[in-house]
Amino acid sequence: MFLAKVIGSVVASQKSPELQGMKLLFIQPYVNKDKTLVPAGSSIVAVDSVGAGVGECVLFTQGNSARLVHNTKGVPVDAAIVGIVDSVEVEGTIVEKP
Amino acid sequence: MFLAKVIGSVVASQKSPELQGMKLLFIQPYVNKDKTLVPAGSSIVAVDSVGAGVGECVLFTQGNSARLVHNTKGVPVDAAIVGIVDSVEVEGTIVEKP
Amino acid sequence: MFLAKVIGSVVASQKSPELQGMKLLFIQPYVNKDKTLVPAGSSIVAVDSVGAGVGECVLFTQGNSARLVHNTKGVPVDAAIVGIVDSVEVEGTIVEKP
Amino acid sequence: MFLAKVIGSVVASQKSPELQGMKLLFIQPYVNKDKTLVPAGSSIVAVDSVGAGVGECVLFTQGNSARLVHNTKGVPVDAAIVGIVDSVEVEGTIVEKP
Amino acid sequence: MFLAKVIGSVVASQKSPELQGMKLLFIQPYVNKDKTLVPAGSSIVAVDSVGAGVGECVLFTQGNSARLVHNTKGVPVDAAIVGIVDSVEVEGTIVEKP
Repeated sequence: MFLAKVIGSVVASQKSPELQGMKLLFIQPYVNKDKTLVPAGSSIVAVDSVGAGVGECVLFTQGNSARLVHNTKGVPVDAAIVGIVDSVEVEGTIVEKP
Repeated sequence: MFLAKVIGSVVASQKSPELQGMKLLFIQPYVNKDKTLVPAGSSIVAVDSVGAGVGECVLFTQGNSARLVHNTKGVPVDAAIVGIVDSVEVEGTIVEKP
Repeated sequence: MFLAKVIGSVVASQKSPELQGMKLLFIQPYVNKDKTLVPAGSSIVAVDSVGAGVGECVLFTQGNSARLVHNTKGVPVDAAIVGIVDSVEVEGTIVEKP
Repeated sequence: MFLAKVIGSVVASQKSPELQGMKLLFIQPYVNKDKTLVPAGSSIVAVDSVGAGVGECVLFTQGNSARLVHNTKGVPVDAAIVGIVDSVEVEGTIVEKP
Repeated sequence: MFLAKVIGSVVASQKSPELQGMKLLFIQPYVNKDKTLVPAGSSIVAVDSVGAGVGECVLFTQGNSARLVHNTKGVPVDAAIVGIVDSVEVEGTIVEKP
């Protein structure tokens, strides 16, 4: 899994029927660099499974595991938000969330 | 999933039989950079499942999930377009689609 | 899937028994850059399923989908050539094949 | 699998129910460069399955294999620590662990 | 699959029980650049299934396919060596193995 910040959302009315009703969030992965979380890599569209909102720091999973949460069984998605992050500790220090 | 723009199409008459009749679109992933969607990463060949056309902004999924749409069950593909994007919002702003 | 050019072949006589008889081709992925297909990323060893040869432009798939073609069921491979490309069109122009 | 150093931990109280009780460690992959292990790539959140702690050099696996350890069956995770590294030898030399 | 050179080995005594008895090799992927095989990308820990040794040029596979060789069924690994490379030909020339 990776850490990410929810930066927005995506609306697609013409879509695969299995995706109906899914909340599609736009997220930016963040990684550790010298005890600071910095944006890194490509922004991703992930299905929400935990009630996440824009601006929150989240944990997301990819691949088949994205279809193991309660609302994505059999749905053609490859990324899902599985947690809202309370805190991240790096080498004994609580780092600031993005 | 990632956002992409459909930039073209691919024709392959000699192919794995399971791919017969599949519409193969050539897509360029786009990512967020300062509230602008910019091209990033490699252009990909994806199967269409939603009637997408060249020039449209789409949502695509990869890996096993690409075989969970109506026309790809058991087909040797690893990328499928699963939605046509209406709008993308980043931090409260509707960003321009590519 | 990605586009690639078949650049060569690999011979391995000491191998996993399931790989016996597989034609192992060495391929270089190509991506679109300003309506030109250019080499990008790492050269890959892929199993051929369509009778591809050196110098041809092909379509290949990765991950579990590589084991959905007729000759790879249950075989430990993660990349397979699934089509020989006739033409690639980008924004209304037929681009030159590598 | 890749080598990594456990650099911290992540707490998420609002999460997918299947993740309850999982120890989420924050790890930094390390790779070989001239017989020295150096940090490379993105920091990852992985589930611990072997009692690893901050500062230890570990082995982790990704994708579906992350759900083959004793405590992750059916859990939406894509990375798991599967070993604590005793030693790494490169071309006949024991290299220093990170 | 990718080509790689076996550069060393990894010892982990505290590990997931399914990994007991597995030979963990440390490998460096190699790619083609102008008919020369050059190191590229991250060094990986792979399970051996063919009796490979340090210094040998091998073929490895990733993801679920890594668990389709004789000794890895159900084992939490995502990379396996599946062949020892005899020769690599690029555009009609046998290239030097790393």
